[in-house]
Amino acid sequence: MFGQMMNQPLLISSLLVHAERHHGTREIVTRRVEGDIHRYTYRDLARRARKMANALHALGIEGSQRIGTLAWNTYRHMELYYGASGAGMVLHTLNPRLHPDQLVWIADNAGDQAIFFDLTFLPLIEATATRYATVKHFVLMADRDRMPRDSTIPNLHCYEDLVEAASDRFDWPQFDENMASSLCYTSGTTGNPKGVLYSHRSTVLHAYASVAPDALNLSSRDAILPVVPMFHVNAWGLPYAACMVGAKVVFPGAALDGPALYDLFEAEGVTVSAGVPTVWQGLLAHTETNGLSFSSMRRTVIGGSACPPVMIKTFEEKYNVQVLHAWGMTEMSPLGTVCTLKGGQETLTDAEKFAIQTKQGRAIFGVDMKIVDADGKELPWDGKTSGELLVRGPWILDSYFNRHGEDALRYDSAGLGWFPTGDVSTIDPDGFMQITDRTKDVIKSGGEWISSIDLENIAMAHPGVAMAACIAAHHPKWDERPLLVVMRKPGSEVTKDEILAFFDGKIAKWWLPDDVVFVDAIPLGATGKMQKNKLRDTFKDYKLPTA
Amino acid sequence: MFGQMMNQPLLISSLLVHAERHHGTREIVTRRVEGDIHRYTYRDLARRARKMANALHALGIEGSQRIGTLAWNTYRHMELYYGASGAGMVLHTLNPRLHPDQLVWIADNAGDQAIFFDLTFLPLIEATATRYATVKHFVLMADRDRMPRDSTIPNLHCYEDLVEAASDRFDWPQFDENMASSLCYTSGTTGNPKGVLYSHRSTVLHAYASVAPDALNLSSRDAILPVVPMFHVNAWGLPYAACMVGAKVVFPGAALDGPALYDLFEAEGVTVSAGVPTVWQGLLAHTETNGLSFSSMRRTVIGGSACPPVMIKTFEEKYNVQVLHAWGMTEMSPLGTVCTLKGGQETLTDAEKFAIQTKQGRAIFGVDMKIVDADGKELPWDGKTSGELLVRGPWILDSYFNRHGEDALRYDSAGLGWFPTGDVSTIDPDGFMQITDRTKDVIKSGGEWISSIDLENIAMAHPGVAMAACIAAHHPKWDERPLLVVMRKPGSEVTKDEILAFFDGKIAKWWLPDDVVFVDAIPLGATGKMQKNKLRDTFKDYKLPTA
Repeated sequence: MFGQMMNQPLLISSLLVHAERHHGTREIVTRRVEGDIHRYTYRDLARRARKMANALHALGIEGSQRIGTLAWNTYRHMELYYGASGAGMVLHTLNPRLHPDQLVWIADNAGDQAIFFDLTFLPLIEATATRYATVKHFVLMADRDRMPRDSTIPNLHCYEDLVEAASDRFDWPQFDENMASSLCYTSGTTGNPKGVLYSHRSTVLHAYASVAPDALNLSSRDAILPVVPMFHVNAWGLPYAACMVGAKVVFPGAALDGPALYDLFEAEGVTVSAGVPTVWQGLLAHTETNGLSFSSMRRTVIGGSACPPVMIKTFEEKYNVQVLHAWGMTEMSPLGTVCTLKGGQETLTDAEKFAIQTKQGRAIFGVDMKIVDADGKELPWDGKTSGELLVRGPWILDSYFNRHGEDALRYDSAGLGWFPTGDVSTIDPDGFMQITDRTKDVIKSGGEWISSIDLENIAMAHPGVAMAACIAAHHPKWDERPLLVVMRKPGSEVTKDEILAFFDGKIAKWWLPDDVVFVDAIPLGATGKMQKNKLRDTFKDYKLPTA
Repeated sequence: MFGQMMNQPLLISSLLVHAERHHGTREIVTRRVEGDIHRYTYRDLARRARKMANALHALGIEGSQRIGTLAWNTYRHMELYYGASGAGMVLHTLNPRLHPDQLVWIADNAGDQAIFFDLTFLPLIEATATRYATVKHFVLMADRDRMPRDSTIPNLHCYEDLVEAASDRFDWPQFDENMASSLCYTSGTTGNPKGVLYSHRSTVLHAYASVAPDALNLSSRDAILPVVPMFHVNAWGLPYAACMVGAKVVFPGAALDGPALYDLFEAEGVTVSAGVPTVWQGLLAHTETNGLSFSSMRRTVIGGSACPPVMIKTFEEKYNVQVLHAWGMTEMSPLGTVCTLKGGQETLTDAEKFAIQTKQGRAIFGVDMKIVDADGKELPWDGKTSGELLVRGPWILDSYFNRHGEDALRYDSAGLGWFPTGDVSTIDPDGFMQITDRTKDVIKSGGEWISSIDLENIAMAHPGVAMAACIAAHHPKWDERPLLVVMRKPGSEVTKDEILAFFDGKIAKWWLPDDVVFVDAIPLGATGKMQKNKLRDTFKDYKLPTA
C-alpha cells in the first residue's frame, strides 16, 4: 500500500523557487572578476537564471546535455548552477587548475556542448578552443566592454548579451528527481580523471543534511562566503544550501589571497566560510602579520584534507572562530562527516574537546560508514583500530560517469553496496572518525602501518615548518620506512635533528622518520592538496641513511 | 540521463539504524504509565523494535496491514513506531480522547488488525473489544504483573511477553520509499473523521526539514520532551527527528499536568519541548504559583492553535525560554511554518521582534504556500490582505485514506496541486504567515471579515480571563456579529464592560464584540483545541443586545 502524500520531486529548481518566494530580498554579493563589487538579490538571481535557461535553449542545448564552466565563485556561475540544472541540463564544472591537455580530455569525455568561462581563463580558451570535440559555443562571462576585439575563438558569445536577449519567463520543468543535474571530475592522481554524475535528488538531500545543526548549522541569518571553489564538488554544496535557507551569499571571485578575503569577510559581515587548510594558511598569515581580528565570523568549515591541529587551535583560541572539521569526497557530493560535539560532551575539558575536534567528525544523517580489514571484515569502533573506510548513502555515487558497467561499490552479506573511499581511518566509540591515511599513502613498515598524516601533523606544529609531507622510502629490511619532506618557513633554519627531536614523546619510537629532507616547495594539486605521488616520484631512488 | 548516485530509499528504519549505530548510548527516559521512571538507550530501542517486528509477524500481521495504538508517549510506543513501520506495516495512532463510538468507527475504517493499548485505556478496551470488525489481537502495553486476571477481552496479550518471546534478529526490509508508513485521522469537527496516510519518504523528508536551524533547530545535544501526544500527528514528527539527530528523549507518559511536567523537565535536563497552548497554561500556572524557573529549557515549540501573545511574552521575558511559534496540520505531517527570525531582523527592536513572533512563521523548505481569494486568485503578501491559505509539499497529502477517487487538492494554471488548509491568513512581505481565522470561524459582518482569533487573543491578555472564544452570532442587519464567550480565571469577577473597555485602541471600532457571555468551561476537543462548533450550537439562537 502506498502513502497518499503529494508526489513532488526533489528538484534543484525548487531550491531557487523557494529562495525567490521566501527570501527574495536577501543579498548575493560578488567581488567580480572585473574587479568591482556587484550586489543583487535572490529575486534577481531567479530572474537571470530563468533568462539563462532560455538562452541555453536558444543556443540549441537541450535534454541532459552537458554545459561546461571554467569559472570562479560569482553570481554568474550561480546563475548557471540553477539555469542549467533547473532546465534539466547537466552543469559540468571544469577545474581550471588542471593541465590544458587534461581539461580538453575531460570536456571531450563529458561531451560538453558549450564552455562558459571567466575573463581569467580567456588565454586558456584562446589556446585550446579548436581542440574540443563536442563544444559548439564559448561564452565569456563578462560585461560587453570586456569582450576581446580580435579573438580566434569560434562561436564566442558575451554572457550579458545572452542574458539580455532572453525572456525572463520560464517555467521550471518538473521531472524525475533521479535525473542527472551536475558533473564533476575527480582530480585523480593516477589514470584518467573520472566523472561523478550527481542527481537532483542527491543534491537536494545533501543540502537538507548539510544545513542541520549537527552539520554546517546554516540558517537564514547567516552570510556565507564559500572560499572552496564552485568547480570543486559544487563548493561543497553551499550554493544549494544557501538557497534552501535563504542565507546571504558572498562570492570572492578570483581574489583568494588572505588580504582580499579578509576585507570581504569584514565588509560584508560574513558569519561562516568554508575551504581547504592551505587557503586558511594564507588568511591567518595575513591576520597574524597585521594584528587583525574577525568581527562577524562565527565558524569556518575546513575540509579537503585533514586540518592541522595547530590551525584549529589558532582559529578557536585566538580568533574565537569555531572550526567545523569536515570530511568528504567528490564521490560523496561531498559531505560525509562533520565534527560537532554530541550530547554529554559539552562538559568535557577543553583538552578533551580539542582531541575530538582534531578528528574529521561523525556521520551526518544519510551517510553510514564502517572500517574494514583486508578481507572486508568490519573492524571495531575503538578509536585505535584503523582500517579502510567504506561509506554509503543517497548522495554517494554507485558508478562513475560513462562507466555503468564498472560498479564502483563493494557489497556486504546483506547485499548493501558500500563505496570504498581509499581512506584509512579509525572510528571511536562515539562514532567520531579520524582519517589516519590514504590507502596508498600509508607506510607499511615490517607489516605494520604507520600513518603519514600523523607524522605530518606533528611536523607542521613545529614553528619553523611551513609544510611537511611524509612518504614511504624503500628499506631493505622493513620494506618501507617514513621519509619526511619539509618546506621551511621563510627565515627558518630548522635542522633535521631539531625536527626529529620534536617528535620525542609524541609517537611510538618505531614511527620516527628515518630521514628528513628539505625542499623549496611541496607540489600542490588542483584542489590544494599535497601531491605525494610527485614526491614519491622525486624520491623513488632515495637511499635512507638507515638502509 | 539519470544521475549515478546510490539508489537508497528514505525509510523510517534508516532513522533507527542511524541512531543505533551513531548514538547507541544516548538515553530515552520515560515516566511510565505504571508510575516509575524507565530509562534505556537507542541501542535498547533498536533491539526491542526488532523484537517487536518479529512479534508482529508472529501475530500473523504482514504487508501493509494496519496496527492501532491507544497509547501515551512512552518508549513502548516508540518501539511500535519503528517496529511496525520499519517492518513495512502501517502504524495507526488512535486518539483515546475520542468518543468510543468514533474510536470503533475509525479502527474499522482503517482495518486495524491489532490494537496496542496502555493500562489507562484498559476500561475503554474492555467496553469496546467485541465491537471492532477487523481487530484480531489486543496487546496491553504493560509489565506482566499488571495484566488483568479476569478479562473479557478476546486474544489479549501482554506486550512484554511478545517482546520476550521474539528474536532480536531482524533485517529491516528495503522497499519503495513511497510505501505507507503510518496513519492518523483528523479530529474533524464535521462529518466522519478522515485518515491521512503518511509514507516513509514523507516522514523522512519532514524530519530533515524539521531539524534545520530555521525550523526546530534540533541537535544531538538536545534533550527533547514531546508533550504533544504521539497519537496526534506523530507528536509533530519528534520521534523521527530525535533518531535523526540522536537527541536524548524524555517521554512524559500519562502525566501531563504542570507539576509532573515541570519535575521531568528539571530532573532530566530537558532543553526543548513541544505542545499546544492549553498544555503550557497548566505548566505556567504551576511555575507562577510556586515561583519556579527553568534551569535547562531553552526553547519550546507551540502550535496546534495560535499561541496567545501573552504566553510568548511570559515564556521569553520571565523564563528566558524561546518560543518557536509553529503551524501545521494533520494533513501536513504536520509542519508547515515555524517562526524564526530572518537575516537582517536581528537588529529589530524587541517590540518589532515580538510582533513577528506572534505570527505563525515562515515556510520551512519543502513547503510552499499562498493565499487566495474566493476565485482562487493569488493575493499579495502585504501583511494585511487575508485569504484562504493553500499549501503544497512532499509531506502534504494529496488524497485521504481510502478516498483515492476524491482528490483533496486544487490545481493552479501550471497544473500544480495545492491543499486548501481551511485556514484564513495574511502573509507579510518577508514571508511570515499569520492565521487570522478558520474559514468556518471567520465572522462575516456586512460583507467584511472579522478575525475571531484576534479578538480571542486580546481577551485572553486580560488578567481576569482564563480562556475566551469568539463566535459569530446572527444579526438582522450585518448578518453576523462577534459574540465573545469568556471563562474567568478562578476568583476573577471581571465584567462585560471591563472586557469590552480592554479592547479600546487595540482593534477597529467595528470589530468590537456585540456582547460578552460568561461560561464555567469552554469545551476542548481531543487535541486540546477549543470546540467552537459546540459553542455555536449552544448559542445558535442567542439574541444579541444590538439586534
